[in-house]
Amino acid sequence: MLTQEKTQNWKPLIKQFEKIAGKQGVIVTPEERSVYECDGLLSYRERPSLVVLPRTTEEVAAIVRICDQNDIPFVARGSGTGLSGGALPTEGCVLIVTTRMNQILEVDLENRRVVVQPGVINAWVTQAVSQAGFYYAPDPSSQIICSIGGNIAENSGGVHCLKYGVTTNHVLGMKMVLTDGSIVDLGSKVPEMPGYDLTGIFVGSEGTLGIATEITLQILKKAETVKVLLADFTNVEAAGATVADIIAAGVIPAGMEIMDNLSINAVEDVVKTDCYPRDAGAILLVELDGMAVEVEASSQRVADICRQNGARNVSAAGDAATRDKMWKGRKAAFAAAGNMSPNYFVQDGVIPRTQLADTLKQIEALSKKYGHRVANVFHAGDGNLHPLILYDESEPGALQQVEALGGEILKLCVQKGGSISGEHGIGADKRCYMPEMFSKADLETMQWVRHVFNPKELANPGKVFPTPRTCGEGAHTHNIPAELDGAMLF
Amino acid sequence: MLTQEKTQNWKPLIKQFEKIAGKQGVIVTPEERSVYECDGLLSYRERPSLVVLPRTTEEVAAIVRICDQNDIPFVARGSGTGLSGGALPTEGCVLIVTTRMNQILEVDLENRRVVVQPGVINAWVTQAVSQAGFYYAPDPSSQIICSIGGNIAENSGGVHCLKYGVTTNHVLGMKMVLTDGSIVDLGSKVPEMPGYDLTGIFVGSEGTLGIATEITLQILKKAETVKVLLADFTNVEAAGATVADIIAAGVIPAGMEIMDNLSINAVEDVVKTDCYPRDAGAILLVELDGMAVEVEASSQRVADICRQNGARNVSAAGDAATRDKMWKGRKAAFAAAGNMSPNYFVQDGVIPRTQLADTLKQIEALSKKYGHRVANVFHAGDGNLHPLILYDESEPGALQQVEALGGEILKLCVQKGGSISGEHGIGADKRCYMPEMFSKADLETMQWVRHVFNPKELANPGKVFPTPRTCGEGAHTHNIPAELDGAMLF
Repeated sequence: MLTQEKTQNWKPLIKQFEKIAGKQGVIVTPEERSVYECDGLLSYRERPSLVVLPRTTEEVAAIVRICDQNDIPFVARGSGTGLSGGALPTEGCVLIVTTRMNQILEVDLENRRVVVQPGVINAWVTQAVSQAGFYYAPDPSSQIICSIGGNIAENSGGVHCLKYGVTTNHVLGMKMVLTDGSIVDLGSKVPEMPGYDLTGIFVGSEGTLGIATEITLQILKKAETVKVLLADFTNVEAAGATVADIIAAGVIPAGMEIMDNLSINAVEDVVKTDCYPRDAGAILLVELDGMAVEVEASSQRVADICRQNGARNVSAAGDAATRDKMWKGRKAAFAAAGNMSPNYFVQDGVIPRTQLADTLKQIEALSKKYGHRVANVFHAGDGNLHPLILYDESEPGALQQVEALGGEILKLCVQKGGSISGEHGIGADKRCYMPEMFSKADLETMQWVRHVFNPKELANPGKVFPTPRTCGEGAHTHNIPAELDGAMLF
Repeated sequence: MLTQEKTQNWKPLIKQFEKIAGKQGVIVTPEERSVYECDGLLSYRERPSLVVLPRTTEEVAAIVRICDQNDIPFVARGSGTGLSGGALPTEGCVLIVTTRMNQILEVDLENRRVVVQPGVINAWVTQAVSQAGFYYAPDPSSQIICSIGGNIAENSGGVHCLKYGVTTNHVLGMKMVLTDGSIVDLGSKVPEMPGYDLTGIFVGSEGTLGIATEITLQILKKAETVKVLLADFTNVEAAGATVADIIAAGVIPAGMEIMDNLSINAVEDVVKTDCYPRDAGAILLVELDGMAVEVEASSQRVADICRQNGARNVSAAGDAATRDKMWKGRKAAFAAAGNMSPNYFVQDGVIPRTQLADTLKQIEALSKKYGHRVANVFHAGDGNLHPLILYDESEPGALQQVEALGGEILKLCVQKGGSISGEHGIGADKRCYMPEMFSKADLETMQWVRHVFNPKELANPGKVFPTPRTCGEGAHTHNIPAELDGAMLF
């Protein structure tokens, strides 16, 4: 048991939580709590002191109120698929798990919106409206398991965000439980409300400002026609240059993804798509959607641009079965990395699209310098890189080296005018890199917002923002000014 | 001179401001200050105590610091074309006018972004990049005169926002002067940054959180083909139903505008487009853009839908000259209203698109009830209504009646599940209607944000939020709870 678990008298609290969420809604034993000790970022672990699974907004509010009254930190968690440790428990915390908040509360096709509880799985939203010809656009790779609440917290992206935008562009409104347990309604069912855009600030705030308990999502009409092009190149730089040229030509594909040689072979070993050529330096997948005539015309234009950039071959898939085959490998890329190496680490950074070719060269140089292979699979259209660093944790010092290599890649992204996170969030993992990207004044301004909504820092403490305690020493030395410690700011 | 002008010792302050902005940058005489006593909402007037025209971020910061140190309220103003009194001076305020901050600081075509000072006129942005085939999408009717800073403050829309979104969707980052005079950089040059979306909360905050001094805007590639369809109907409800059907068919036009019979005739009296039939109950303008094949196919589909809804005639314009002729009347609609009546008042409200036909009927009934003609010109695709209420201010009680009628229209919008403002903002004009739309808890949550960034309420005081002082009595009685007074909240 942790220090705080010992000092906090949990027995009467457990009774209170059980009164709210029922006996089945409170997980007490250390063994069962261990299930929740990490999210998709496996390298950080901490067992929560208690796990509570509410079913309604009112239950969340009641749980938060108890935490607030007893100064107990709390962390919200959906499916736990996040890759930045955003749902990592804090020492001594109550973990509020939304798995039982899994109801689709309203489907309003006429006004193109769906109201869901936060534990609803991303893919369920599309399933609920697909028959009627609609879909929910943001599609993280984990969409068959990740929750809408988690998507809101991390402002998740996905393959189709190039054309359709990330989560924040699809959230019309939310019912939120604030950190004192009060309930507010943000946004509405029509877009662009007057007053401050609080919906916008809560989306992507990684659980540090409150917990969304009802979310109004916008759904889109399915495109009449969808076509996928697969182009193969002798090197990844040519694929990168093609992406920039396609956008420059005025075509906006639904998605544009690049996989390099290492990823292609990893995927073919495991999935056997039979359409990714193993000797290609890189493949580029371009999905085009819209009216049939438009898709036809753009796909010809895209194929021409691919060939002008040296593509050896460009194949097209119009029917769903062939399209699925082409995407299958891309979607299995992270999983296939596990087949190449005992361990791997997924990085997430953004660069301006025009810098793709040069950045990929520099990542290759860094990979050689550190002696770790890096497989590149990424949302090329957005400039959103996902380098997979391969390593073996049984080798002494390997994890430290991988962290250093990952850090250098992030710094490279910032140097190129990009960002340290495209869609995975900052969480526990990248907070120490925030000063690479933001000035002291910028971070302080964000802290003002955190402080007003989360004054006691009970909601997901220690996430997103660097503190001298967490970042001032150890592996990451980032020269954090002492004033940036949340506790000292106010 | 106003009370505060008397009590505040302005002489030494004027010296300080002149030191910052130069003698030409400080306007002292009452006659010259009178020029700035209102914005486009002519019915509210207040002469500022001093007008200062800075040229740089540093000058704005220095001016704000003096205001902060001396507890002087300050209001930022661009071109003063706003329609909700957002730039209306507050009693005893320093008006910070951005007219001299009119430089386009950077044009980066490769990465599709432009950095501008806030006094840059909206249309200048497109002019700067047009030759290279790009444009800036948000296009308020006032685009040849309104400033980007004002667009940011009010989150301005325009005809093309149906497809391309409002201002907030096109702002990548901003340099801001906060209310204590400190300078921060929000957002960046790549979209979707980690951390809190402060850019999103500052856009549309109507000058209550600080002053934007450098703005990074996203520019778009011009569409290959643009076509405008003009359909005429015997009644406005049929035009409204057509709009809903076009969207339901999966077509997203660049813009869809409706004008009713009264507006058509007003416009034809003044502009003589010769393409708006005077006997039509309503006309619908639909602009389609994209690749040539796509525009051709969608325009056939749209024309069919118009005819299915009873359109008497559908004409199309592909060349720029005919397109401009079709749009000319729509763009002159507000001005033409001045020819119909000694005075007019433009309302701005939003309803779900599917409620168009019914809402228009109810507005007609309200118009009869109050005995004031209402001309309807609106962004139909967004459900953003702009009823023009015609009146003669020389008639006793007319203004009060018009305010009451405008208020009933807003309440109708809220009842329909819409909003009290689509693109003109709340400003001084609509603050008393905020409780129609937001609960006490929602408004308090916004006040928390205001308070943290603007703790002394010196930045644009009295705007956006209702207070018992301004809304508790008089013409608008809205039953504002006493706790909602900003001064009492903290």
